[in-house]
Amino acid sequence: MILTVTLNPALDLTYRVDALVPHGTHRVAAVAERPGGKGLNVAAVLHALGEPVLATGLLGGATGHRVAALLAAEGVPAAFVAIADETRRTVAVADRDDATGFWEPGPRVTAGEWAEFVARFRELLGQASVVALSGSLPPGVPVDGYAHLIRLAAAAGVRTVLDTSGAALRHGLAAGPDLAKPNAAELGALLAPARAPAPVPAASAGQEMADATVVLDHGARAVVVSRGPRGVLALTGEGAWHGVPPERLAGNPTGAGDACVAALSRGLRDRTPWPALLADAVALSAAAVAAPGAGAVDRDTYHRLLPAVRVSAA
Amino acid sequence: MILTVTLNPALDLTYRVDALVPHGTHRVAAVAERPGGKGLNVAAVLHALGEPVLATGLLGGATGHRVAALLAAEGVPAAFVAIADETRRTVAVADRDDATGFWEPGPRVTAGEWAEFVARFRELLGQASVVALSGSLPPGVPVDGYAHLIRLAAAAGVRTVLDTSGAALRHGLAAGPDLAKPNAAELGALLAPARAPAPVPAASAGQEMADATVVLDHGARAVVVSRGPRGVLALTGEGAWHGVPPERLAGNPTGAGDACVAALSRGLRDRTPWPALLADAVALSAAAVAAPGAGAVDRDTYHRLLPAVRVSAA
Repeated sequence: MILTVTLNPALDLTYRVDALVPHGTHRVAAVAERPGGKGLNVAAVLHALGEPVLATGLLGGATGHRVAALLAAEGVPAAFVAIADETRRTVAVADRDDATGFWEPGPRVTAGEWAEFVARFRELLGQASVVALSGSLPPGVPVDGYAHLIRLAAAAGVRTVLDTSGAALRHGLAAGPDLAKPNAAELGALLAPARAPAPVPAASAGQEMADATVVLDHGARAVVVSRGPRGVLALTGEGAWHGVPPERLAGNPTGAGDACVAALSRGLRDRTPWPALLADAVALSAAAVAAPGAGAVDRDTYHRLLPAVRVSAA
Repeated sequence: MILTVTLNPALDLTYRVDALVPHGTHRVAAVAERPGGKGLNVAAVLHALGEPVLATGLLGGATGHRVAALLAAEGVPAAFVAIADETRRTVAVADRDDATGFWEPGPRVTAGEWAEFVARFRELLGQASVVALSGSLPPGVPVDGYAHLIRLAAAAGVRTVLDTSGAALRHGLAAGPDLAKPNAAELGALLAPARAPAPVPAASAGQEMADATVVLDHGARAVVVSRGPRGVLALTGEGAWHGVPPERLAGNPTGAGDACVAALSRGLRDRTPWPALLADAVALSAAAVAAPGAGAVDRDTYHRLLPAVRVSAA
């Protein structure tokens, strides 16, 4: 079973309006609700692929109940730890042109709740072969929270995929996850402290590989950098590769990185050779772009692209 | 006991942001949640005044649970009927200048749920002396739903205050509520079908009284028109009055009309003579403007203004 960890999930609301008028009042024509948070997207994609998965993390209050109910309606197996504070909401107001986003701050997690989660996580490791740790840490969770979970997983012989950013990423890398999956912006932010503050020109392929090396220097055993329509760049103990989709897809890129993590987690579980694993990750990311919302993949796109992804040694 | 009916309550969310940027992403600095819907404001004001009150209506889903929990935290007695669909949310995004509002559509109410509510309402009438019916009707409730409830109340010897708009108001008036409380805009909309479509100049005092008469023609036994900072205009079987606050208050006018209904309901229960009742309604409305949010009144403002409200025969 693949265990997905979502410490700061959300109830994602999308409001459809004609046009956003600042300081106006809008009657919302349609409301869509879905369970949000990167780890829940990973779990939803794995479940859609028929892979055994269990979603864990922290959920609180009426909003947390709603997220749990929506996950259950999708059939995604879940074992969340309850917290007293309210799970956050995100509101995306979609008009004819684009979306305007409002992100609530996360709930405050107490030391006792975090300890309870860690205990539950240790129990769940007994059934897991891979753990995917995704997204931000809510207030109250230690900044090295992912590092703690990664060390517990390693001690239990369970492999780990880390997909987060900022301080949570930097601290998490120090615990030696089997794989880190930053996107290009997250990789840039990780490197920023060491760089001159002047604007940096678009990275060359050589520079991108050098940047990715820094992730290994920080402690990860392998790194896959997701680069949007340009595919992925991987640096592992067995070699370095580029994986490039055969065509550029129009659609909704939200959740493409989570589909990538789903593929990488499955590949890590099956010890799939890196070139095949990366082809799968590129095709599944593209299939997420082709699907309407995060946490979904378009199966036809996936099966069409998979044999055509180009993976080459870098 | 005063029974307040809220068929389309809401979870009111206020998001504090620095500045609203259309098509941008906003990290919300602070989130405030409160039980919303005009009838819940009426109940909260009556409860704050120490008046026996019971809030009823329809609540559904996780959002409905949250509204019930917030009401319970305020100590407002409640007896809601559960529906399957989700109670709506409203989101107000407050920046440095003003607020931008997003109103979800109401839940869909089934015929069975409506029948269940009507049965519960009949039971609750046994303990009530006055019923206040406030706000919009959610999809699925018959457009003459308020009329049905008003007739049941009259048959049980319970007096009624109706505060709604549009078709719900027009149909409700036909059942002969003891009192209707439109604001000037709602009164205008009631009159609109009979008026020329050309722009109408600001109404004179005489025109306003003539307009109010139409509410009685529609079936109400009395009408109190709330006119914001200009106070109230009342037309009853015993006479016509203007009630005017002694000063103009700065503050938040949301919920002032609900405080007015709270005062009117209490006065109807106590058979307070109209002039004293109107003075109370004007002072309590102003006290709601002086309080930070809907459903609250500033006691000092109330007690300061009450003896100074001018009520004169119109």
